[in-house]
Amino acid sequence: MEFRAEPLDIAAQSPTVLFNAADAEELGVHPLDRVQLRTDGRTHIGIVEVTEELVEEGSVGVTRQLGHLVGQVDVTLAPKPQSVSYITKKLRDTELERRELGAIVTDIDRDRLNDVELSAFVSGIYANGLSRSEVIGLTELMVEAGKTVTWDRPIVADKHSIGGVAGNRVTPIVVPIVAAAGLTIPKTSSRAVTSAAGTADTVEVFCGVEFSIDEIRDIVDSTGGCMVWGGAVNLSPVDDKIIRAETPLSLDPPGQIIASVLSKKRSAGSTHVVIDIPYGEGAKIETLPAARELAEDFASVGDHVGLEVECAITRGGEPIGRGIGPILEAIDVLEVLAGGGPDNLRIKSLRIAETLFDVCDVDEDPAEILSSGRALATFRDIVAAQGGDPDVEPEDLEPGAETAVITADQSGAVTHVNNRLINEIARRAGSPKDKGAGLRFHRIVGDAVDAGDQLFTIHAENREKLADAVERSEHVEAVRVRSPDEALVERF
Amino acid sequence: MEFRAEPLDIAAQSPTVLFNAADAEELGVHPLDRVQLRTDGRTHIGIVEVTEELVEEGSVGVTRQLGHLVGQVDVTLAPKPQSVSYITKKLRDTELERRELGAIVTDIDRDRLNDVELSAFVSGIYANGLSRSEVIGLTELMVEAGKTVTWDRPIVADKHSIGGVAGNRVTPIVVPIVAAAGLTIPKTSSRAVTSAAGTADTVEVFCGVEFSIDEIRDIVDSTGGCMVWGGAVNLSPVDDKIIRAETPLSLDPPGQIIASVLSKKRSAGSTHVVIDIPYGEGAKIETLPAARELAEDFASVGDHVGLEVECAITRGGEPIGRGIGPILEAIDVLEVLAGGGPDNLRIKSLRIAETLFDVCDVDEDPAEILSSGRALATFRDIVAAQGGDPDVEPEDLEPGAETAVITADQSGAVTHVNNRLINEIARRAGSPKDKGAGLRFHRIVGDAVDAGDQLFTIHAENREKLADAVERSEHVEAVRVRSPDEALVERF
Repeated sequence: MEFRAEPLDIAAQSPTVLFNAADAEELGVHPLDRVQLRTDGRTHIGIVEVTEELVEEGSVGVTRQLGHLVGQVDVTLAPKPQSVSYITKKLRDTELERRELGAIVTDIDRDRLNDVELSAFVSGIYANGLSRSEVIGLTELMVEAGKTVTWDRPIVADKHSIGGVAGNRVTPIVVPIVAAAGLTIPKTSSRAVTSAAGTADTVEVFCGVEFSIDEIRDIVDSTGGCMVWGGAVNLSPVDDKIIRAETPLSLDPPGQIIASVLSKKRSAGSTHVVIDIPYGEGAKIETLPAARELAEDFASVGDHVGLEVECAITRGGEPIGRGIGPILEAIDVLEVLAGGGPDNLRIKSLRIAETLFDVCDVDEDPAEILSSGRALATFRDIVAAQGGDPDVEPEDLEPGAETAVITADQSGAVTHVNNRLINEIARRAGSPKDKGAGLRFHRIVGDAVDAGDQLFTIHAENREKLADAVERSEHVEAVRVRSPDEALVERF
Repeated sequence: MEFRAEPLDIAAQSPTVLFNAADAEELGVHPLDRVQLRTDGRTHIGIVEVTEELVEEGSVGVTRQLGHLVGQVDVTLAPKPQSVSYITKKLRDTELERRELGAIVTDIDRDRLNDVELSAFVSGIYANGLSRSEVIGLTELMVEAGKTVTWDRPIVADKHSIGGVAGNRVTPIVVPIVAAAGLTIPKTSSRAVTSAAGTADTVEVFCGVEFSIDEIRDIVDSTGGCMVWGGAVNLSPVDDKIIRAETPLSLDPPGQIIASVLSKKRSAGSTHVVIDIPYGEGAKIETLPAARELAEDFASVGDHVGLEVECAITRGGEPIGRGIGPILEAIDVLEVLAGGGPDNLRIKSLRIAETLFDVCDVDEDPAEILSSGRALATFRDIVAAQGGDPDVEPEDLEPGAETAVITADQSGAVTHVNNRLINEIARRAGSPKDKGAGLRFHRIVGDAVDAGDQLFTIHAENREKLADAVERSEHVEAVRVRSPDEALVERF
C-alpha cells in the first residue's frame, strides 16, 4: 500500500512506523510487526505501532531513524528476521554457531529487533549461559560491528570495573598514576544508568567528557591519558543496545559481561587490561568462587581475542569512598590525589594501578607516584586538556546546600552498607543530574556508633528532592547498625 | 516534579508517559523506567518514553490507559515491581511459588510490566518450562484475574484446537452437531494473529461474532450453541497479554498453552472439553511422543482445576480443507454441513464430535446428525441467532475475483503442504481482512500430478495484493511435489 510518510518525534529505540488503526487493519499489521518501506529504490524496515488519531489514514509517522523518509512510500508486511529463530534456539539451550550469532548482532546493530525479541536474547543468555566459544564469537562480532581505534604504541593500558559498588571512583585516580608512569591509558567510562554517578558523571565535575576520537587522540598524545565518556564515541553500539534490554531486568549474565567489556576494550585499541571484579553481599558477583570463575573466563577469552587481561578480585559488599554523587565523589578523588582522602578509595586505587603495572611490566611504585604529587600533576594536565580548570581544589567543589543528617537508631557497630539502597537514596536526592546531590558517610563498616550518632548526610540542590531522599532513607536500612546483644534473632 | 498531563493518542499496550527529553534528564528517568503519577489522592504507574518535540517541557503525554489524567500531576520515579525479581528467578530455573506467580499475573493484568519484562517471563517459561503445580497455579490465577461465566446446566461442552494448521475450520461443523444432540456448547474462538483466518474471521462471513455475555446467553439458550469471538468478552485478559509477547517470538511453551486454554475454558464456564492436538511437520507439536506428553498434562491439569478434559491427537502436518481464507473456508464448512465438502475436514469434524460425545456420555452418532441434515438446520439456527442469513448457500459466498493459478513445475506426487507458507501466501493476498482473499487447493497430499497441473488458485480482492501473493508463491515451495527418481538427493 502507498502511504505519505511524515516525521514522528518519539525517541523509540527501534525505527518505528506509526499507522492509523484503520490502515493497520487494512494492511493486516499489528503492533510489533515489521513493515518494509520502499522509496526511490531504497528499502527500510520499521516496527509497527498503531494510533487512532495521531496520524491520519493514508499517512504513516516515521521516527528519527527513518526520518529521511518523507513523501510517498510503498509499505508491505516484512517477514520476521531469521535471527529471531536463533534467539529461540538459544532459549532451547542449543549452542549458537558463529554465523547465527552474527545474524543476531547484525540485526541488533541495525535496530531490526523489537524490545520483545531483544529481551528474549538477553533472557536466553541469562537462562542458558554462553559457551566459551559463544563468548569469543560475540566479543569479536561486536567489535566488528563498531568503530575501532588504533594507537601507534606497543602497550595501551586500560582498566574496567564490572560495577555494582557505590562510589568506587577509582578511575580518575588510576588514570593519572598510570599516565604519570609513562604508559598510555585512553580510558572511556560510562554515565550512570541505575547508580548515583558513573565515572563520566564525576569527571564532568572537573572538565568536559564528550570528545570525538580525534580530540581524544590529541588529549592522550599530550598527557598520556584521558577520562572521557564512552557513549560519545559509540565504540560498541551493539553492546549498548543489549545493555538497554538488560537494565529493566537487572540482568547481567557473566558471558555477556565478558563480551561487553572485552569488545569495548578491543574497540578502544587497548592491549593490556585490568578488570576489577568486586564481590560480596549485594554486588553483581556474590561469592569468591563465582568471582574466580569469572576471572578465569575473562583471562581465557582475552587470550583468544588478543588482549592481555588480568583480573583483580576486590571487596564489593559496601561503597568505596566517603562521597556518593558526582561532586561528593570528585572531592574524594581530589583529596586522594593530594595525599589524603578516604583510605578504602586510596588503597583500592593503588592496588589496581599496581596490578596494571605488573601486567604492563612497568617497574614503578604507584604509592610513590601518588605521594610525590606526580599523579596530581598529571591529573591537572588531563583536566586542562579536557577543557577544565587545572587549578581546581576541593574547596571549589560545593555539594548541594540542602542537607539532612541520618542518624543511628541504636548503639553498636556498622556491619553493612547496602550499595543498591545508597544509590537509590542519592538518585532521589537528584544525582547524577544535580551534580551536588548525593550523600556523604560519617561512618563506614566496622565503625562503632552510639544511638543518635550521624551515619550520613544527604545533600540535594532543592528541598523537594531532599525530602524524597529522606523519606526513602527512613523506609530502608541502607546503613546497618547491630549491637552485640542482637546475636539472638528470635525466641519462641 | 509537577507536570501538566495531556492525553497522548498512541495505542501502547502499557500505560505510557511521554516526557520531553529535558524533563526526563531533570527527573533522571530513561525510556522503559516507571514513574508514579499522583493527582487527587490517586496514584497511577506509567512506563517512560521520551520525545524531543512531541510534548513541551513541563508537560507529559499520557496514553489511553491513563487518559483520565488531565491537568496537574505530581510525578516521581517508581520502583521496579517486585514481580520482575520473580521473572528473573524463573530465568534461573527456580520453581515459582503461588504468591510469586500471583504477583506476576497481577502486574500483567494491570499493565505494570513493560515489553522487555513480559518477554523475559515468556522466555523463562520457554527456556525452563513450568512444573505441574506452576501450570495449575497459572491457570487458576488467570481465571481469577478475569470474568467468569456460569451456566445453569450440569454439562457445558467445549472444544479447542491448539492451532498451527491452515484451514482446519472444524468448529462451525462441530458446534452445530453437538448442539443438535441437545448439548450446550457456548464456543468462543479467536481471530487470526499470524494465520490466514481464525474461526471468528470465518464465522463472520455468515453472521456477527461480537456479542456481550448477556447476548451470548440468549443465543445459547435458544439454539444450544454459539460461535462467537472470544476477544469481545475478555474472558482471560492476562492470557491475551502474555500471547501478545509470545507472538513476535513464535513461542508457544507447552505449559503456557495448557494454562492459556484451560483458563479460558474455565472462565467460559465449560465443564467437558476436547482438546485437538495436531502434530506433524511444521505444526506446533512435531512428534507423537510430544503430543502424548502434552495430552497427559492437559488431562492432569484439567483434573486439578475441575474440568473433564479429553485430548484428540490429530494429523497436523498439512492444511485441512480445500479453502484457506474466511470465505473460502466458509464454503468448505457449508458444503460439509450439506453432506459434501472436503473429506479431511468432514472426517476430522466427526472424530472431534465423537470424542466430545464420549466425554459427555451422549449416545448419538455424529455422522447421522450430519447426514440427516440436523447439523445444518442447527447451524442455520445459530447463524440466524447471531444476526446472519439462515438461508445462505455456497453460491452466495464469493471468493475474491482477482485470481492466479499456481501450477506444478514437475510431475510426481504432492508429498507435503507447508502450513506456515500457505498462511503467509493467503495473508499477502489480503486474508483475513479481505474476506474473499486466500487460496483454494486443487491437489492435496497424496495426489498425483503432472508438470503444469494446477496446484492451487490464489484469490484476492485487488491486483496489488494478488501480485504480492503470487510473488511470494514463486519464491517458496508451499506445495511440495516429488517424483520417484528423486530418491537420490545428491551424488558425489
